[in-house]
Amino acid sequence: MVGVSFPRSRGLYPLDPSMQDDASIRAPFSVSFEHRVFFTRGAFEPANSLLADCLDPTRDLADAVGGAAAEARVAFVLDAGLVNKRPSLPDEAVAYAEAHEAVRLAHPPMVVPGGEIAKNEPTILQSVLQMIETSHLCRRSYLIAVGGGALLDLAGYAASIAHRGIRLVRLPSTTLAQDDSGVGVKNGINAFGKKNFLGAFAVPHAVINDADLLATLSARDWRSGFSEAVKVALVKDAGFFEQIERAAASIAERDAEAAQLIIRRSAELHLRHITEGGDPFELTEARPLDFGHWSAHKLEQLSGYELRHGEAVAIGVALDSVYSSLAGDLTAPEADRVLAVLRALGFELDHPLLDDPRLLDGLEEFREHLGGGLTISLLNSIGDARDAHEIDPAVVRLAIERLRGTTRA
Amino acid sequence: MVGVSFPRSRGLYPLDPSMQDDASIRAPFSVSFEHRVFFTRGAFEPANSLLADCLDPTRDLADAVGGAAAEARVAFVLDAGLVNKRPSLPDEAVAYAEAHEAVRLAHPPMVVPGGEIAKNEPTILQSVLQMIETSHLCRRSYLIAVGGGALLDLAGYAASIAHRGIRLVRLPSTTLAQDDSGVGVKNGINAFGKKNFLGAFAVPHAVINDADLLATLSARDWRSGFSEAVKVALVKDAGFFEQIERAAASIAERDAEAAQLIIRRSAELHLRHITEGGDPFELTEARPLDFGHWSAHKLEQLSGYELRHGEAVAIGVALDSVYSSLAGDLTAPEADRVLAVLRALGFELDHPLLDDPRLLDGLEEFREHLGGGLTISLLNSIGDARDAHEIDPAVVRLAIERLRGTTRA
Repeated sequence: MVGVSFPRSRGLYPLDPSMQDDASIRAPFSVSFEHRVFFTRGAFEPANSLLADCLDPTRDLADAVGGAAAEARVAFVLDAGLVNKRPSLPDEAVAYAEAHEAVRLAHPPMVVPGGEIAKNEPTILQSVLQMIETSHLCRRSYLIAVGGGALLDLAGYAASIAHRGIRLVRLPSTTLAQDDSGVGVKNGINAFGKKNFLGAFAVPHAVINDADLLATLSARDWRSGFSEAVKVALVKDAGFFEQIERAAASIAERDAEAAQLIIRRSAELHLRHITEGGDPFELTEARPLDFGHWSAHKLEQLSGYELRHGEAVAIGVALDSVYSSLAGDLTAPEADRVLAVLRALGFELDHPLLDDPRLLDGLEEFREHLGGGLTISLLNSIGDARDAHEIDPAVVRLAIERLRGTTRA
Repeated sequence: MVGVSFPRSRGLYPLDPSMQDDASIRAPFSVSFEHRVFFTRGAFEPANSLLADCLDPTRDLADAVGGAAAEARVAFVLDAGLVNKRPSLPDEAVAYAEAHEAVRLAHPPMVVPGGEIAKNEPTILQSVLQMIETSHLCRRSYLIAVGGGALLDLAGYAASIAHRGIRLVRLPSTTLAQDDSGVGVKNGINAFGKKNFLGAFAVPHAVINDADLLATLSARDWRSGFSEAVKVALVKDAGFFEQIERAAASIAERDAEAAQLIIRRSAELHLRHITEGGDPFELTEARPLDFGHWSAHKLEQLSGYELRHGEAVAIGVALDSVYSSLAGDLTAPEADRVLAVLRALGFELDHPLLDDPRLLDGLEEFREHLGGGLTISLLNSIGDARDAHEIDPAVVRLAIERLRGTTRA
């Protein structure tokens, strides 16, 4: 959601007193946003007004021009993987719009493939854009995207470029999307064989985390979101790490209530990092929350995406925790606690690709991705991270040996 | 150019005290930008350091990691129409980079078609994106676009979506791009037969208005930018309107010095509207600077784009000035001054399409484009505009008769 800007000053200055012909206009300004995440259950039940309440009328000048009553024009984009497990979802969306006077459906709910294919196949983007065009969604209308992280990335990208940005409401349907990616301000698709080569930064109008959407997840997808919770706890909040340690066994047994507390806190820490970190759109210095991610990205890629993102992050977090202990900051018992909590959540921390010599190429690719110098987070202690600009490949190899050793032991 | 954000507060509030299970996280934040327009001559002369000085190093952590010296990686995208008239431009760009140590050319200058084809033909966008990918431009690298408004829109869109935004420097090469469109924060291409259906808001790293780039313009293109100067003067600045009245004959005779003063002030007023108008990204209420544009857009379209944008704006500004005098705000002598200054600049204010009954459809299309109620600017007096939410078609028809009558007299 967005507010108004607060211009500060402007002026006409000569660029250089010695250059009579040159001048410049410099105009500083700022734009205010509000990033909102709501937590609920049964978001599509007609009696739950949260989704409808999140929407502002598409035409709020309706009175001034004597037009129709204020209403929000919306179109749903649903993840086919989710609809496959909950076939009633398109009808639920239609019924929800019918039950709420202020919600006007501009198009029948659209079901598109989720997962990485959504980001790899340009015709899927094209079909969402075509739907936006056909249904005359304008900059004050809403695209409501319901699905996993890839579907949300795709739909969010379509929303951010159509008419230079229509409003987006996200309902993430995986633990990973609810506690991390779906809470962010990024979207994108893959192009030229590069992940997220095309995309934009855009603050969603609202994010709605519906705990009931997690009910149909497979065991792997259920687990996958919690490695990002461990990651954000390790770099930000020792108390939260202890909370995850206490909840890990219950989460592994699919205790929805225990999971909700962890998801909520993880979402909050991720959101705060974006909004309070000093550079939400990563315009100056890239400081993403990516402890453990240099190797995770590479492992995903080397596995041909057989490894889920959350599974690769679990391995990457374990590796950089062991590295942190070898580099002298984190204590060995602390590193052991990291490995233990990840295993308690059900993650496998061993993988043959850890021995692949190409793994270390991930460091240079990570630097290229950041676009500046190499910056990697390492742990001083649980809950406290620091930036490192050099990583010793020999120590990485030693950390891999230790990690594989403890795994085999 | 961008700065850091200034987070204000955050908190965890219950959404509604009666709903124990629901909660929300709301995080307000803001992002600071600086919008900069520089004025120069001979921007590609090796001795002119302005362009090089605008660029920050792509790797400013170079020292920290013991890497290469700080330098900016850049790629040029040049308008084929401009290169056609100034065939040395690609070589000049290469020589400029060679003359400035801090400027590292990442790819040979790319020449792409300018004009509306740049925005209509998806393969042109694709070729620019492919070049960005091939040359490994990152988020801290620069795309330097040199050309007319359409080329700048295309290149700016490619820059805004590649890697979720690489840095863009614009060197507009038409009067229209230098005094209006090139100074803005919008970019985009056409899709599904709709103008600017895809695009983004993005603040360029810098805009450089090089007066010498205007030397090769045709008479029509030279003239075309000044109707937007008249427009912004009419709604913002009576003194500037008088300045244009005094300069009009000289501009029509292609006096570069007289033109520069008008271009500079027009650019400044357009820029200030964006940065001080309260909604630079048009996120809440669309308040574009589009006096006279509802009919201009429609005339362009009905003419099959035979009418240049600036020519259509001249007619549209004339029409809405006459309408403003008929609606009782502007005086008839003031409206006559508007017609006189546009004619003195060389604009033809009569056009057979003014009698086309489809012209009035432009009002509804304009409302749809804004996405809310209809808001049209009308003049209280020269230099002072107000919003109108209703336009009387009978009075529009009367205004057309008057305009065509004065034109024929």
